[in-house]
Amino acid sequence: MTSHSQSELAFLAIDQAARLLRRREISPVDLVEAALARIERASAELNVFLTVLADQARRQAKKAESEIRRGRARGPLHGIPISLKDNFATRGVRTTAGSRILADWIPDADSDAAKSLAGAGAILLGKTNMHEFAYGITGENPHYGPSRNPWAPDRISGGSSGGSVVAVATGMGFGSLGTDTGGSIRVPSALCGIVGLKPTFGLVSTAGVVPLGVSFDHVGPLARSVADACILLEAIAGKYPRGEKRPDYRKLRASRPRRFRIGVPKQLYFDRIDPEVRRLVEAAVKTFESLGAHVEEVSLPRLERAVEQATNLIVAEASAYHESQGYFPARAAEYGDDVRGHLEYGHKVLAVDYLRGLAAQKEIVADFEAAFEKIDVILAPTSPISAPPVGEKQVRIEGERETATRAELLRFTRPSNLSGMPTLSIPCGFTRAGLPVGLQLMGPKWGEARLLSIALAYEEATEWHKRHPELS
Amino acid sequence: MTSHSQSELAFLAIDQAARLLRRREISPVDLVEAALARIERASAELNVFLTVLADQARRQAKKAESEIRRGRARGPLHGIPISLKDNFATRGVRTTAGSRILADWIPDADSDAAKSLAGAGAILLGKTNMHEFAYGITGENPHYGPSRNPWAPDRISGGSSGGSVVAVATGMGFGSLGTDTGGSIRVPSALCGIVGLKPTFGLVSTAGVVPLGVSFDHVGPLARSVADACILLEAIAGKYPRGEKRPDYRKLRASRPRRFRIGVPKQLYFDRIDPEVRRLVEAAVKTFESLGAHVEEVSLPRLERAVEQATNLIVAEASAYHESQGYFPARAAEYGDDVRGHLEYGHKVLAVDYLRGLAAQKEIVADFEAAFEKIDVILAPTSPISAPPVGEKQVRIEGERETATRAELLRFTRPSNLSGMPTLSIPCGFTRAGLPVGLQLMGPKWGEARLLSIALAYEEATEWHKRHPELS
Repeated sequence: MTSHSQSELAFLAIDQAARLLRRREISPVDLVEAALARIERASAELNVFLTVLADQARRQAKKAESEIRRGRARGPLHGIPISLKDNFATRGVRTTAGSRILADWIPDADSDAAKSLAGAGAILLGKTNMHEFAYGITGENPHYGPSRNPWAPDRISGGSSGGSVVAVATGMGFGSLGTDTGGSIRVPSALCGIVGLKPTFGLVSTAGVVPLGVSFDHVGPLARSVADACILLEAIAGKYPRGEKRPDYRKLRASRPRRFRIGVPKQLYFDRIDPEVRRLVEAAVKTFESLGAHVEEVSLPRLERAVEQATNLIVAEASAYHESQGYFPARAAEYGDDVRGHLEYGHKVLAVDYLRGLAAQKEIVADFEAAFEKIDVILAPTSPISAPPVGEKQVRIEGERETATRAELLRFTRPSNLSGMPTLSIPCGFTRAGLPVGLQLMGPKWGEARLLSIALAYEEATEWHKRHPELS
Repeated sequence: MTSHSQSELAFLAIDQAARLLRRREISPVDLVEAALARIERASAELNVFLTVLADQARRQAKKAESEIRRGRARGPLHGIPISLKDNFATRGVRTTAGSRILADWIPDADSDAAKSLAGAGAILLGKTNMHEFAYGITGENPHYGPSRNPWAPDRISGGSSGGSVVAVATGMGFGSLGTDTGGSIRVPSALCGIVGLKPTFGLVSTAGVVPLGVSFDHVGPLARSVADACILLEAIAGKYPRGEKRPDYRKLRASRPRRFRIGVPKQLYFDRIDPEVRRLVEAAVKTFESLGAHVEEVSLPRLERAVEQATNLIVAEASAYHESQGYFPARAAEYGDDVRGHLEYGHKVLAVDYLRGLAAQKEIVADFEAAFEKIDVILAPTSPISAPPVGEKQVRIEGERETATRAELLRFTRPSNLSGMPTLSIPCGFTRAGLPVGLQLMGPKWGEARLLSIALAYEEATEWHKRHPELS
């Protein structure tokens, strides 16, 4: 039916694919088959999918094909194959949250986000591997194996949305949804060279997602481009609070920002980072300047200390949730060592320290709000390092003493979870070893539209998002 | 200047006093002298005032007299002497919060509520004794002595707003402001036979008040009648959230409620109470019926267990505050034994239990909201017992095993702090031993107007609020 190769089909931009579908130059069946072929080829090796819904996806593709043929096209996601991280409840489909505890859980209702994507006509290819209960940033799962970096399979994908990110990076579907409580969308996106958006807290429903820290959990899109992320976001975004009108994220490409102001943080985000990461992020700043950005330094004086204190909020919420479900400590032996350790730690946090964390959170919000009075977005690396090898618990940055890989990977992403502000990770280059590097753009709460417009301008001026890893 | 006796002057209703002032039949100086004479006579014996501002009050009275004479009357509180609990910051006036730690603190700014009363023309007689840092319900202060019940000085006044309540009950001023974090306005009001209102959380500013538990602290009026309480509330109430129009509480007397629905709780509030308290509260229900009330039982099924869990919120906040100020544990030796014990306990609360408390708080709110769909106010005793003797740490109710006096006194008031709903304690009779008993009326959040109207109807039909204790 089509003259495109399966590999070409697998990496189409969503709006391109949608155009070809509408013109009936391709069928949803072609897209699904192209994705399934890639899953067949590399999912096991890279530990990408926990559940593949091949038959169901093929049936849905046929159905979408016939709907489109009968002129019942629903929009740009109709007939587009996607995946979901395995902590999104899916009716009748096993939802493990990457855990042994939920290994056999078959939800009887869809999560809100799964329902939204299905309603937009997207086709679910399957459920992806993840860090156990989303409680880790490396994607190394003790029960289902580590999701591996498609650019260097001996390296981590990052997590917790590792499987989803690898699926998108390797053309196993056009997009996915992840969750981000401390960096779980953005860090793997950066390490694997794709686009990941953590929207404003509250913009996308988390109902039906297995929680990690309920006050900090965010659902967001994973895509190969900002343009694709906009299409996915439009399908899952809820209403604005207080009835204000929400922009249509699919229309942002038309409105290029002329002048905008970028803030480069004086504190935290450029301390102790890999020199290659620094070089690539600084080059991106130059690119932004060439696009008309005014760049200035911004000060976030209380941020670093406040983030340290406020992290108590997340770990305590995680332990409270697992206790409330009777998982922990009752079934402690069924967890991987790392997650069990985190839950034990979180259980011991004192309420007085939790309350100090709440006060610190207010300082974080205030520091960012002050910065956003002068600038449109804050630019920073997503991670201080590119993907480390699987199993490497310590890293050494700029020749300093070794530090915990986990802590380093979370260092630049957690502030946005504590502030609730929208933050995007986009590809900004490759190390000499060929590993992707990402940068973050952070905007004020409910400011997705401007944030995404600025990211789109960068994307149109660069080619990084067009490189895809070779499957072995 | 006046033909009224000092005792008559001391017990005037505020609107009566205001009328006489406006007609210049009396002067603010008379009112201040009458109050000071009573302070002179009995404050030391009953441990009522920690600081008496006799000279300042006399000066202010002269000033008010001359303003009124020149036709510059400001409203019903102009020239009316009042007191403040000693945790309200007062510029240039020592503010101890009943503690040794703040024994020498002289604030350089007024609390919002102090400023509001001064702005309304009220005259500050002094600062009243209280349970140390408002952290106790008996009013037994180890540093300044127990505030004593004016109906039986060997008995407690209740606390923590004990001094303020005794001042109002004995005519040492026309009203006072207290704070209520677990019952500290309502319990002493009930035990001493006056009216105490804990308004909706957020209606009255707590800025400048030494906090106990910031999410549960309420500022409210103490008065000899609901009518007086309305006048005081009007002076200190802030705006409604979201710009809705707030009623004028001084005008409620004009609008008598015709039909209203009273809910009598099936759970908690009538379990294990002194038979005399039960008898008097049940008699009050009959009175309400005779006024046109429809009375029905309401169910609050989750309340008792949820209150137990949510109490962690208050104690943890208290410890967090005292730690944040460097008072505790640094200066632990300077606290009384009971408060030090509470702070030690609160320090040990785990964050996971705090979070369970937040979930429990939602259940409390939901139980009350469900009840208020069918009824206007909930009626219950304020305290299961009348005032116990000073120093009596255990009580026996209805012949059951002994329980902690503190816990019993707090049992019926804490739910309103956790729900944030407005709650009033009004006198409803006397035990055979001559001790006052109070009942609570609780209304939905921001429902002060209807709540106070219903209380006014009861007040106009009864005489309990007109009895005053004799000073020895």
